[in-house]
Amino acid sequence: MDPLDRRGFLALGGAGLICTIAGHQITTDGGQVDVEKLAKEVPVPPKVAAAERGGGEPRRELAAFATSSSAVREYWIAAEAMNWNIVPTHRDQMMAEKVKEGKTTFKAYGYRPYSPGFKSPLAPAQVPGPLIEAAVGDTVIVHFRNKTGSPVTMHPHGIFYANEMDGTYKGKWTDPGGFVQTNRTFTYVWEAREGTEGTWLYHDHGPMDPLPVFKGLFGPLVIRKPGEVPPEAEFFLGFHSWDPTVTGLKGNYACINGHAYAGNTPTLEATTGQRVAFHVYGMDNFFHTFHLHGHRWIEPDGRIADTKTFGPADSFRVEFTEDNPGRWFYHCHVFQHLHMGMNGWYIVS
Amino acid sequence: MDPLDRRGFLALGGAGLICTIAGHQITTDGGQVDVEKLAKEVPVPPKVAAAERGGGEPRRELAAFATSSSAVREYWIAAEAMNWNIVPTHRDQMMAEKVKEGKTTFKAYGYRPYSPGFKSPLAPAQVPGPLIEAAVGDTVIVHFRNKTGSPVTMHPHGIFYANEMDGTYKGKWTDPGGFVQTNRTFTYVWEAREGTEGTWLYHDHGPMDPLPVFKGLFGPLVIRKPGEVPPEAEFFLGFHSWDPTVTGLKGNYACINGHAYAGNTPTLEATTGQRVAFHVYGMDNFFHTFHLHGHRWIEPDGRIADTKTFGPADSFRVEFTEDNPGRWFYHCHVFQHLHMGMNGWYIVS
Amino acid sequence: MDPLDRRGFLALGGAGLICTIAGHQITTDGGQVDVEKLAKEVPVPPKVAAAERGGGEPRRELAAFATSSSAVREYWIAAEAMNWNIVPTHRDQMMAEKVKEGKTTFKAYGYRPYSPGFKSPLAPAQVPGPLIEAAVGDTVIVHFRNKTGSPVTMHPHGIFYANEMDGTYKGKWTDPGGFVQTNRTFTYVWEAREGTEGTWLYHDHGPMDPLPVFKGLFGPLVIRKPGEVPPEAEFFLGFHSWDPTVTGLKGNYACINGHAYAGNTPTLEATTGQRVAFHVYGMDNFFHTFHLHGHRWIEPDGRIADTKTFGPADSFRVEFTEDNPGRWFYHCHVFQHLHMGMNGWYIVS
Repeated sequence: MDPLDRRGFLALGGAGLICTIAGHQITTDGGQVDVEKLAKEVPVPPKVAAAERGGGEPRRELAAFATSSSAVREYWIAAEAMNWNIVPTHRDQMMAEKVKEGKTTFKAYGYRPYSPGFKSPLAPAQVPGPLIEAAVGDTVIVHFRNKTGSPVTMHPHGIFYANEMDGTYKGKWTDPGGFVQTNRTFTYVWEAREGTEGTWLYHDHGPMDPLPVFKGLFGPLVIRKPGEVPPEAEFFLGFHSWDPTVTGLKGNYACINGHAYAGNTPTLEATTGQRVAFHVYGMDNFFHTFHLHGHRWIEPDGRIADTKTFGPADSFRVEFTEDNPGRWFYHCHVFQHLHMGMNGWYIVS
Repeated sequence: MDPLDRRGFLALGGAGLICTIAGHQITTDGGQVDVEKLAKEVPVPPKVAAAERGGGEPRRELAAFATSSSAVREYWIAAEAMNWNIVPTHRDQMMAEKVKEGKTTFKAYGYRPYSPGFKSPLAPAQVPGPLIEAAVGDTVIVHFRNKTGSPVTMHPHGIFYANEMDGTYKGKWTDPGGFVQTNRTFTYVWEAREGTEGTWLYHDHGPMDPLPVFKGLFGPLVIRKPGEVPPEAEFFLGFHSWDPTVTGLKGNYACINGHAYAGNTPTLEATTGQRVAFHVYGMDNFFHTFHLHGHRWIEPDGRIADTKTFGPADSFRVEFTEDNPGRWFYHCHVFQHLHMGMNGWYIVS
Repeated sequence: MDPLDRRGFLALGGAGLICTIAGHQITTDGGQVDVEKLAKEVPVPPKVAAAERGGGEPRRELAAFATSSSAVREYWIAAEAMNWNIVPTHRDQMMAEKVKEGKTTFKAYGYRPYSPGFKSPLAPAQVPGPLIEAAVGDTVIVHFRNKTGSPVTMHPHGIFYANEMDGTYKGKWTDPGGFVQTNRTFTYVWEAREGTEGTWLYHDHGPMDPLPVFKGLFGPLVIRKPGEVPPEAEFFLGFHSWDPTVTGLKGNYACINGHAYAGNTPTLEATTGQRVAFHVYGMDNFFHTFHLHGHRWIEPDGRIADTKTFGPADSFRVEFTEDNPGRWFYHCHVFQHLHMGMNGWYIVS
């Protein structure tokens, strides 16, 4: 039960540079990074500082964004630090093995949903963050409060957003939405215009990138077609990995929704006859190959498939009518990732 | 002509954990694994032990599986150990180089086809295993005998299979088909239902995963559309790799159908005017990019392509009418893999 | 500002074998390769030597290639060595960081366009090489002159080419077009037949492969549909990487069109209302995931996407009508590559 050491780092693709922040090179074999300490050295960009002083570019009024939308979907989401246990059961039900003796808990970041006005949390801070859902025609408003010790943001995929709403750190061109400091709140306004339907995601894209993403700041976003009836059984699965630079733990974890190894990863359930949809996305440095036992689906191009290869920030949906009862695996078919925890149960009754 | 050493391990993606079996961590720089010795430590799962005692879940009668199938395709396939020479010519015809001085033979595993009742072998044990072929509407019955020293299975992709026929080790939920012990035989029954047509594959998915797959236990499976006339020239190509943990040899090999380097890999032939199809699948830890010189094909989405990137257990078919004579390369376009042997000849007259 | 060392090598996928040439194994941690010195040891293939002596296979006359093409597109292109600065500004505008202190210039190879008869250069030697453009029905003639010290070639993707025009080193079967020696010229004749339209590329495929490709010998090729009106804003982007074996510099660079880091990579411009197309291709050992902020496109299969994962020599086009002003990022979403320079600006007014 020897914990993984440096060899583990290499298992998921090679040691080396993660990023350069404030003149420091962060590498995978440089030990755990203290993101919040590093964040202190990052200067506030000029437009952000100006906005804080009350000058600079005026924030576009909410009314200017309003389309003739059917609805406004409003969210209150905070980025927070929390203790997160990657392998709570310390067991891998697939190989019937004990795994990861010792500590599997570390201080992660998670997006956390709150009731209006941030009055009270609607759920614990988790990895991934809460599902943001809209239909074509809606306006999505996200009140984002940063309760971590580093500037972080929310950057969406797929949905329409004006330039100052892209939640992206851009060096000296950074807008307030690209550099939300500790205890500040920023209101993102995005539009689910025609031609934005699909399975998407959101994640941090701030000055500490990719460290906050790697600590857990990502989540799913879905835009429904007009009149779409969601499938009866629907799952949103983020494939990502954790290494010691981020966790301070020994070894690497290949995770689905923040956990590793069957029995810790999501155990999904459906019944025969149901319409079932898996929404899948990646959010690390690797490609993954989603595979589901006992089933197959029709790809948008008409091809029948039971595997699908994807990279970081790719997102897709596979859908079928359930017809095959039993306890099934879903997993990443990259054998190395499968055996580092990237598998789970799909149980059909 | 210095043989590859640890640097070679890293060439195909990084050293590290392969899997954890019976409490042992198998890593790529831990030397060659003795799979059969390790297998002795793996306990027999409860349902399998019960079935052997004559109790436990009754095996579903064959009749219960029969659809109104046009045909029953019945196979007798054994998993066996054999000596396998990865580079028999010790030459790379692409670069006109001698390669891999010294030993290139190791003890691999292969699926081997037999005549009914396992009376006599129909071919030597090979990598990949025999093509399993069916048409939509057929029932496929595979009598699988394990002649290796480790529990192994047959897990298919694409074809319909009931839960106890998925040939998968599932910890304590494992069925007999997911843990076929040495000298035992298990009968898999699968159904080529409507909506399963395509290019697929099968491989071990037992308790020693991924080691038996890596030793060679995989092969192609194809389900024809009703009334489909197979192309006149048709090739089934498995892209995978071998490293010292599996082979005990020095260096890495990037292989097509179990061999490395042009002149060892399949030399494919066709003539102008023929319909030609390449069925391709991956079965290692890497992505590969299939490329064919001198030709292009139409993808299912209508796009014209001459390359296609895929991950492990992805499978696809490219098809075109041959119109260009000459000696051509087909290869993985990942340069590192190309130069580790992942290339071969396609000769059109 | 510690320069990347061996850890950097590993950052982009692992150290190891690049290729074997003339009996020498070239590995990523073996120091910078002297390609031209190595080239001296490569023997001239028999058919090439025979052609030089005036014997051997007769070169097919140009007339034999002519289809009833609408046009003949004729190019004069030389492969040359030149000094190339990967990060001219020494800054990363995305993270507002100084990057890569010290030398970022090395001796690269580039394809360079010349006026008819090679009278005068039309542009400096660059990475990538010049766009080769044709419409379906055209014949493309490329007079290729090798001004480097190693035998190099031009091998195209997508366009129709007869076997002796594939620009590929094939060991003893090599044609003159697959082994163009220093100061020799070879005339390639390719045909943009029906069914070849699309976004493609060309690159070296000679005896020194992949070293000349890695030094910069690649470029885009596009075949227009008949009657196609090119988009008003069109960009051709090659995603590749440079490591010390090729450059002799410290560290790895993840590049777009030969440069790394925003402000050095192409800064692209468009205006709202324009039809915009990004033509993207890869040319290294890695997969990349193209992502564009603020926009999305319709894939050939009808799916809406804002990311696309691809491998080496994959090529594709994404197209949309511009509707969103601002300064946007385009980048590889593999975080490691993003932070090694694989990002740039797309500015819409």
